[in-house]
Amino acid sequence: MTGIEKTLRYLRDSRGRQLENLCRYLEFPSVSSLPQHAHDLAACARHTASLLSGAGLTDVKIHQLDGPPVVTAAWKQSSHRPTLLIYGHYDVQPVDPLELWHHPPFAPHVANDRVFARGATDDKGQILMHIHAVEAILKATGSLPVNVIFVIEGEEEIGSPHLEPFLLANRDLLQADLAVISDSSMWGEGMPAITTSLRGLVRLEMTLTGPQSDLHSGSFGGAIANPLEILARMLAAVKNQDGQILIPGFYDNVKEYPESMRRQTGALPFVPDHFLEGVGVGQAWCEKGYSILECIWHRPTFEINGMWGGFTGQGSKTVLPSKAHAKLSMRLVPDQSPDDIADKTMAFFRSIVPPQVRLDIHRPKGGSPAIRFADDLASFQAAKKALSESFEHDTYMIGEGGTIPIVAKLKDLFHMDTLLLGFGLADSRPHSPNENQHLPTFYTGTEGLVRLLHYLS
Amino acid sequence: MTGIEKTLRYLRDSRGRQLENLCRYLEFPSVSSLPQHAHDLAACARHTASLLSGAGLTDVKIHQLDGPPVVTAAWKQSSHRPTLLIYGHYDVQPVDPLELWHHPPFAPHVANDRVFARGATDDKGQILMHIHAVEAILKATGSLPVNVIFVIEGEEEIGSPHLEPFLLANRDLLQADLAVISDSSMWGEGMPAITTSLRGLVRLEMTLTGPQSDLHSGSFGGAIANPLEILARMLAAVKNQDGQILIPGFYDNVKEYPESMRRQTGALPFVPDHFLEGVGVGQAWCEKGYSILECIWHRPTFEINGMWGGFTGQGSKTVLPSKAHAKLSMRLVPDQSPDDIADKTMAFFRSIVPPQVRLDIHRPKGGSPAIRFADDLASFQAAKKALSESFEHDTYMIGEGGTIPIVAKLKDLFHMDTLLLGFGLADSRPHSPNENQHLPTFYTGTEGLVRLLHYLS
Repeated sequence: MTGIEKTLRYLRDSRGRQLENLCRYLEFPSVSSLPQHAHDLAACARHTASLLSGAGLTDVKIHQLDGPPVVTAAWKQSSHRPTLLIYGHYDVQPVDPLELWHHPPFAPHVANDRVFARGATDDKGQILMHIHAVEAILKATGSLPVNVIFVIEGEEEIGSPHLEPFLLANRDLLQADLAVISDSSMWGEGMPAITTSLRGLVRLEMTLTGPQSDLHSGSFGGAIANPLEILARMLAAVKNQDGQILIPGFYDNVKEYPESMRRQTGALPFVPDHFLEGVGVGQAWCEKGYSILECIWHRPTFEINGMWGGFTGQGSKTVLPSKAHAKLSMRLVPDQSPDDIADKTMAFFRSIVPPQVRLDIHRPKGGSPAIRFADDLASFQAAKKALSESFEHDTYMIGEGGTIPIVAKLKDLFHMDTLLLGFGLADSRPHSPNENQHLPTFYTGTEGLVRLLHYLS
Repeated sequence: MTGIEKTLRYLRDSRGRQLENLCRYLEFPSVSSLPQHAHDLAACARHTASLLSGAGLTDVKIHQLDGPPVVTAAWKQSSHRPTLLIYGHYDVQPVDPLELWHHPPFAPHVANDRVFARGATDDKGQILMHIHAVEAILKATGSLPVNVIFVIEGEEEIGSPHLEPFLLANRDLLQADLAVISDSSMWGEGMPAITTSLRGLVRLEMTLTGPQSDLHSGSFGGAIANPLEILARMLAAVKNQDGQILIPGFYDNVKEYPESMRRQTGALPFVPDHFLEGVGVGQAWCEKGYSILECIWHRPTFEINGMWGGFTGQGSKTVLPSKAHAKLSMRLVPDQSPDDIADKTMAFFRSIVPPQVRLDIHRPKGGSPAIRFADDLASFQAAKKALSESFEHDTYMIGEGGTIPIVAKLKDLFHMDTLLLGFGLADSRPHSPNENQHLPTFYTGTEGLVRLLHYLS
């Protein structure tokens, strides 16, 4: 029996414990964007460290930062073999709207071959697959075919504001030939995929202030600017009817995406109606001239993530409010700089705000440029083989509209490429109520990662 | 000593008890728009009844309705004298944003010649002035120079949805020659005013639904319509850059207001800069071609009272939300019908909503048309004399941008005119944090009401 065979048998015999591990990991409410969860993040970091120790990794370390800690662990006993940097994150998105969850988001619920909980797919479930793969190889064969270093952080969901100084301060520890990250999606159930592009991200928060306090809309309405109305006008001015963004200079550095990617994207078995049915809308809302996948993977966006002001409770209050607020984010494509786009967007809003209200706009910490990899890298071909064999299905090369800040940072700081092997499904619901992990994918994906470590050696 | 003199002496000797009465009345959190305050409204109605009994009125009755009760009381022993219907309301606006209050809104705080509490001026303070005036005349002289019937309701702040059936069912009880209402403002401190016009009101609530649940703005942004963006576009489409409302037919029944009112309004000692400083803004935002006072008193409005959706908490969540909400209201001028304007506005939004989102829009109960009175009514001249003597200052004839639903209903159902004598000041802050009652105005205004009852006899 080969090392791979021994390892796969070990994995199949230990699925019960893998499921227990997953459920336990998902119980931590490690929401990085909410300050009240700081101690949950710390506890989740300690638990992550214990999972890595239990897997047989050495040099397990919890690095204290200004934000939630980073956990690292290594196995570097194959001195002539390549070294992989396996990255993941133990923090999760907030859970609201809580009322739409069928079960409490931090009390994992197993049903229909799935585990439902916040973080089940993004990203605790996926980083755990890597831990299980390494643990199985070590337990079944006594050593790994490659060297590995795990880096598991706790603020990916807020744009990884402390990651760059951490990477720079730990350059020696983190030396590796390739990064491997599972924080994206398959093409479909049973259809593996390698992601070759990610969009970037930059966020802004704005507040408009009109009168110094809320006013009676009868006694003042008609003569005093309503900040909610001004906010609506300003946000409506960002795009034209074709969905193009009108912020001056927004597209300056945007190039058409490569012809090879265009061919790949066009050849994917994508059914727009299935995609739209999955999210419950009848029609797409795309930038003119681009398909759905192009808009999600290869075009930048301007999105209103939150907007509020005035009386929002039950009943009524006929108020002319003092303030209006919005949380905004832009997804970026290659060659758009987060700094530049933030500056241009803030300048745009400053140029259109009328004198009757005061605009306060700022950029929260974090943000990341976009990245694209050539899809003919040798490591990508090894990964294709590992996944295709495990899932018994061809592996697609796809894009991803989301952002994983470390990928651009590794390229920029260490010239390191990243292999993005995602195991999310269309109905995994990351960032949404009823996020879940599909267990057959969880088990088979782990087998794919075992093969990957062997094929990359 | 005349009856008036005896009564004024009685009033001046009982100011301590008047202040106690005011503070006690303001302790009831009688917020009609919030269902959780139903029992507070009932308790406040009972307290209102006890105040009326204590004043020497008879036939005190609490009328149970589907909403908060109406309290009535009468004194009808002068069979050949006119009868006044004195109306007020014991319900108040919500208190949020609570953090802007310097003292708890239902723990009255006396400072700087003022009592700070929700309802201090709108309308508990003002209805209490009428109760004190009647009480003083009865205690000082044994009888009233006119007949009175008090009607004090508990849902004025939500548009008085049950008032019309109450009026129709109690037509005999409510027979009167003139209504008198104090729920508006003076021209300034020490400068009395009679209000000869009120705007109407109609409210709408709308929700836009895009995807069936909140989505990851990276994985879906760019191809799926964001309901917050659509809401901003739809609300921005309501007015043009000149502040004119573009809802088809909105101005169909709007006539220019009377030349006599234009002359009166133009002659008032109005200082725009003082008005703007009072609310803390540098510039007005008026419909093109109209002055500040014209915009507030004589032009209709479209106002966003509340707007919300997506992630509004601390921190960030890069979500493409499922829903976006808005609470809207329109102030109306004479000949605009609330039904018609609500229908036209809903039709407008239905005509511009794109197919990617679902629009749910409805009109909450309540609403009122606008009203204007001729300012040469004999009763208005009697009131001018009473106020001018008490405040030792000329009385101005002014307009009011707010809405008092019963005024239009009394005219429509009973052909009854209403004398609007308001005692609010520019810094009374009705509907806003730190609402307050100016005590010198409270005491002198009550003396004006004593004179008024005599001069109307």
